[in-house]
Amino acid sequence: MCDICVMNAVKDRMLSRRSFFKAAAGAGVAAAAGVTASAPRALAAGHSSVTDMTHTLSEDFPTFGGSPGIAYDKQFDFAANGYNLYSLTVNEHTGTHLDAPLHFSQDGASVDEIPVENLVCPLCVVDIRARAAEDRDTQLTPDDLKGWISANGEIPEGACVAMNSGWSDKVGTAAFRGADPARPGGLHFPGFHIEATQMLLEETGAAAIAVDTLSLDHGPSADFATHYAWLPAGRYGIECIANLDKLPASGATLVVGAPKTRGGTGGPARIFAMV
Amino acid sequence: MCDICVMNAVKDRMLSRRSFFKAAAGAGVAAAAGVTASAPRALAAGHSSVTDMTHTLSEDFPTFGGSPGIAYDKQFDFAANGYNLYSLTVNEHTGTHLDAPLHFSQDGASVDEIPVENLVCPLCVVDIRARAAEDRDTQLTPDDLKGWISANGEIPEGACVAMNSGWSDKVGTAAFRGADPARPGGLHFPGFHIEATQMLLEETGAAAIAVDTLSLDHGPSADFATHYAWLPAGRYGIECIANLDKLPASGATLVVGAPKTRGGTGGPARIFAMV
Repeated sequence: MCDICVMNAVKDRMLSRRSFFKAAAGAGVAAAAGVTASAPRALAAGHSSVTDMTHTLSEDFPTFGGSPGIAYDKQFDFAANGYNLYSLTVNEHTGTHLDAPLHFSQDGASVDEIPVENLVCPLCVVDIRARAAEDRDTQLTPDDLKGWISANGEIPEGACVAMNSGWSDKVGTAAFRGADPARPGGLHFPGFHIEATQMLLEETGAAAIAVDTLSLDHGPSADFATHYAWLPAGRYGIECIANLDKLPASGATLVVGAPKTRGGTGGPARIFAMV
Repeated sequence: MCDICVMNAVKDRMLSRRSFFKAAAGAGVAAAAGVTASAPRALAAGHSSVTDMTHTLSEDFPTFGGSPGIAYDKQFDFAANGYNLYSLTVNEHTGTHLDAPLHFSQDGASVDEIPVENLVCPLCVVDIRARAAEDRDTQLTPDDLKGWISANGEIPEGACVAMNSGWSDKVGTAAFRGADPARPGGLHFPGFHIEATQMLLEETGAAAIAVDTLSLDHGPSADFATHYAWLPAGRYGIECIANLDKLPASGATLVVGAPKTRGGTGGPARIFAMV
């Protein structure tokens, strides 16, 4: 909205529309950000609940590199200008976000080129929480995938295979990054083992892998083997996914609201799961 | 990903993993960005298609103010650093995007506070294309809403009521903004009439209104009456929505991948419709 236009208009409206602003204050209080909405009105056809798989993004959200991933620049303020508006500067790989093939390849698909049909995915949740609680550097292995398949059947075409390491709960704590004071740059959290990644590439048509940690590779990785195997093959990744513990191992549908930035290498996404 | 780590790792991997990069090139070509995916694999339960309601965002995308809404700053480049990554600076109200209640109120809900259940909406498409083709300043009126209700029944609780003015097709042309050379700042495109907005506020539980143009208010608006009525009441808006002409008047479900930026006044969103 153009500043001058609103400045002129708002003088009159501020006095005549007090009732709306009072309503707004009430609405702000009422707008509790529920994680799971049972039986939303629009989901009658086949789904009974929607779960928000997205962490809230702010300057405080932990990042791989350690610097804040988002900066706010308030361009217009309601009291002065009649409306609020920010310019945001965002590192693409911040918060609950996508890694597009282009992130780790010369000319792979950018985030806007990921086919729509790969953004609505059968979700396979592989639970490694017990092992991760004992070893923060653990990795999701082919045996974990075989265990999931034994219990749930084949991994569906176009699936997103997600690692639930229990890390989502640590997001407000130093344990989420697991930075090692004795080794600057060293991080500690679970990720996908390269052999599991290769198994998914060779034996399945999975479209995506997802982790509840900061990287598809586990924290100590020096070679980013999973990034370099998975993304250049034209598949995509999700990092810092939330709330996997609220979903069944099989049967949920992930709806991945990837940013549609032309030429983007990924970016913060809004992700829902429908059961 | 930390730059030093990748620099060290990539030296070895560049030689040993050529096959993956070849695969990436192929994937890039294959990743055609389909608008509508019929019968996606994960949608068996009740839905048969998903339609992408999102325009691709770039520096070229038209904005209300006329300046580019996004700027790219490439921080890391694959050839030099082993991976690609941008820092993006984005005006929140750019591209296919949300207006949160906070955009036009002192303390309304920010975009991260919109309840999840209001982001999965029964979609009501109100078609004013014929009139908009004759008058680019036309507005969606109470009579248009009454016509929709007569044909389709009551507007559902939690619905998104969308104006299809045919403007989505003009996005690559000057007609999308309709800037008037004789009156700097003057724009011309359709929007919601304040009386239709008030009817939705008073008589329905609609959660959102959507337009295929740059503003909830029509281009010539001097007072932003619809913004100042709708948003402070705790409801939200969608601007620059795409592909409404591919959907039925009633029966689709909109899944609104709103950004989850703490305190944000809106932002680019990925939006799908499921039928």
